Amino acid sequence: MIKKVLIVNRGEIAVRIIRTCKEMGIKTVAVYSTADKDSLHVQIADEAVCIGPAKVNDSYLNMSNIIEAACSSGADAVHPGFGFLSENPKFARLVIGCGLIFIGPNPDVIEKLGNKSEARKMMIEAGVPVVPGSKEIIKTADEGIKLAKEISYPVIIKASNGGGGRGMRIVRSEEEFEDNFNNAVSEAKACFGDSDVYLEKYIENPKHIEIQLLGDKHGNVIHLFERDCSFQRRNQKLIEEAPCHVLDDNIRKSMITDAVKACRHVGYDSVGTIEFLLDKSGKYYFMEMNTRIQVEHPISEMISGVDIVKHQIKVAGGQKLSLKQEDIKCNGYAMECRINAEDMERDFAPSPGKIKFLHLPGGRGIRIDSAVYTGYEIPPYYDSMILKLITFAPTRLECIKKMRVALEELIIDGVKTNIEFHYLTLHNKTFIEGNYDTGFFDRFIKELEEQSGELI
Amino acid sequence: MIKKVLIVNRGEIAVRIIRTCKEMGIKTVAVYSTADKDSLHVQIADEAVCIGPAKVNDSYLNMSNIIEAACSSGADAVHPGFGFLSENPKFARLVIGCGLIFIGPNPDVIEKLGNKSEARKMMIEAGVPVVPGSKEIIKTADEGIKLAKEISYPVIIKASNGGGGRGMRIVRSEEEFEDNFNNAVSEAKACFGDSDVYLEKYIENPKHIEIQLLGDKHGNVIHLFERDCSFQRRNQKLIEEAPCHVLDDNIRKSMITDAVKACRHVGYDSVGTIEFLLDKSGKYYFMEMNTRIQVEHPISEMISGVDIVKHQIKVAGGQKLSLKQEDIKCNGYAMECRINAEDMERDFAPSPGKIKFLHLPGGRGIRIDSAVYTGYEIPPYYDSMILKLITFAPTRLECIKKMRVALEELIIDGVKTNIEFHYLTLHNKTFIEGNYDTGFFDRFIKELEEQSGELI
Repeated sequence: MIKKVLIVNRGEIAVRIIRTCKEMGIKTVAVYSTADKDSLHVQIADEAVCIGPAKVNDSYLNMSNIIEAACSSGADAVHPGFGFLSENPKFARLVIGCGLIFIGPNPDVIEKLGNKSEARKMMIEAGVPVVPGSKEIIKTADEGIKLAKEISYPVIIKASNGGGGRGMRIVRSEEEFEDNFNNAVSEAKACFGDSDVYLEKYIENPKHIEIQLLGDKHGNVIHLFERDCSFQRRNQKLIEEAPCHVLDDNIRKSMITDAVKACRHVGYDSVGTIEFLLDKSGKYYFMEMNTRIQVEHPISEMISGVDIVKHQIKVAGGQKLSLKQEDIKCNGYAMECRINAEDMERDFAPSPGKIKFLHLPGGRGIRIDSAVYTGYEIPPYYDSMILKLITFAPTRLECIKKMRVALEELIIDGVKTNIEFHYLTLHNKTFIEGNYDTGFFDRFIKELEEQSGELI
Repeated sequence: MIKKVLIVNRGEIAVRIIRTCKEMGIKTVAVYSTADKDSLHVQIADEAVCIGPAKVNDSYLNMSNIIEAACSSGADAVHPGFGFLSENPKFARLVIGCGLIFIGPNPDVIEKLGNKSEARKMMIEAGVPVVPGSKEIIKTADEGIKLAKEISYPVIIKASNGGGGRGMRIVRSEEEFEDNFNNAVSEAKACFGDSDVYLEKYIENPKHIEIQLLGDKHGNVIHLFERDCSFQRRNQKLIEEAPCHVLDDNIRKSMITDAVKACRHVGYDSVGTIEFLLDKSGKYYFMEMNTRIQVEHPISEMISGVDIVKHQIKVAGGQKLSLKQEDIKCNGYAMECRINAEDMERDFAPSPGKIKFLHLPGGRGIRIDSAVYTGYEIPPYYDSMILKLITFAPTRLECIKKMRVALEELIIDGVKTNIEFHYLTLHNKTFIEGNYDTGFFDRFIKELEEQSGELI
């Protein structure tokens, strides 16, 4: 059994992990940068070790300092949380190499699933649908046109070594193909020093549906149903809900079956999530697997009654999953609003600073995961998410109403936040109906601007 | 349907009722004394009306001011919460007489169940066990000795018009009877101007078990299982849990059946609680029925998933109970610690004052019902309970561990509280085993004092 865990993270996820460790009787060691010395995770952990200055490269990504903290504190396990080093196979190997337990899947699985083409290959082997596209580099426009016809328009041309939208072109018809291909190739060359591009079916404004999975080192895999994370701003989730309100039951079953099958195929042995894109016709495609706990895991905990972090720690210690699939029931609806310290009127730019006054809503069906308090100074160096407001109710509409009431009561004085934006979203007809997709955020913002002449 | 509710209460229960009203789309009107002008319930209600100065007789018990507030604000219903006027049939009749809905049972039921001997008579009619004793006044010691033999020792002699322990004598054997009888009679005469006494079986250190009930105006009654409220200081509950960990299944079934039967018999048509005393031999006796929402209702909400206040409002409006008994499942364990602003070292005397800093625990399985905030000044005029900390988990032990971790994190600076006392209780072997009775508090205090020479 694990006796002492070093938590290599900060903010609410560090606090959340520490709380569960304490409930399990496990000692906790927090790590912190100098900018985080007054942070809640430092205060509630049994011990805390400073691992460097504010910049993440010098602290939360500084492997040697972290490993030294783990060894000197006598921890026997390391929990990476999410972000930072959580999906870094090198870090996982380093932890294990030092004789410590890495609370996550085995490093080989992290590595394979972290590689896009490798992950895609494994999913094809497992019989899980992937976005149709070229397995190899597309060398000429003609080659591309031939393939595009096969997989049908719209398609997307992507730079092999690209990212962040550079070197990408959406093509909606054969006539547009050649020009777009040439542009993509030259942009790829200019941006990444490599003109290689490949082709994929373009899934237009899909639903983003993900399946929460739990595996152990004994080959057991179970799921905790799906989450709908389609309300995103530039790939950053803002509101998540579970289960997905508008998902057809047969598609749900099929997605879940595929996700569990994929986990078994890759030998997945921890907590993880498979993300799917669901198109308007009901077809879905593997997007990626996240080999770690996720920000939005609380909504799956609410509907299933399962403490995901607790089971993540137990299986990391080698225990068999003590949960049986047939005992997991979906007991209602849960929704999470990510409260960020950001300024809507300045294109959601981060708004760090001191919280002068904090008042949290409470009562039945309210869960708050946060690390802030009255007087806390939000440092400018890290993520702007400061609080997760979660509601749980027997029906989705009750869940939405509860969220509105909670948002009305929540006060975070001293910094700008997106509380009001969430409140507006929860009164939007499309959102209330549940049938929104990943393109909804932009349409919603436009709608708000048209209504008022300015954002709010 | 009810459209606007006046809440005749303050503190956390007013806040709790307002939150549910808002979720139901019902407008809310708070009432407040001048001492409560900065209270949370005033701030979150849609409207607020001052009903008088700090003293409860002038404000929260001031029926004419309250009725005026109800009428002038256009409320169509009145929620009394608990305490204050919640079990006053005259007030309920006044509300109804003004054409408003009283959110509680009909006044006749309140009146009958509020009268000890009337309630006892109705329970006997319903076939529910009551504490054995004399139906009439005991006139002589000989008459008492004869009856005491029938019902078996120990017995208790009580002043008919007494209360607060005055004129009460516990008698453990026939030899002690006459002296105690004479003392009780003269104390009754001295204290209450009336020498009438009666006799009851004395239930020594029982478990205090209560059944949560919901009725409607159409004859439906359901239950939400039991609560164990045996951890009390001078009849003031401190920690409650649901379900009762050590209750025999057959006794549970029988108690619940009796409670539902009693409700049907008296025509109970709202939310209420029947309290039983359970003796060491497994016999139980009706103690009283509370014809209102109770402080500890959240733990029943946690295990059953039912919003009790919501259903209370719906049935008051004349709707049929939308819950079916067969759909109500007990989904885990819940526990509530009543956090009071009081000074353990001064015999738990109230400790009002300004809260300089408040930090609330959060995360999975934590529910907080409170009306305080950083900077809030607790007035000295009212109850010292300022926060209810509720945990919910699959097992009782997890529930206890979660409560410990939450208590470690909870910070209320500026006033003395019983947080530490709860923490000690949650580490006590007898408490952890669950087999404690109403005498446990005193034994526990004694044990703590013996250990340390002083209370803490």
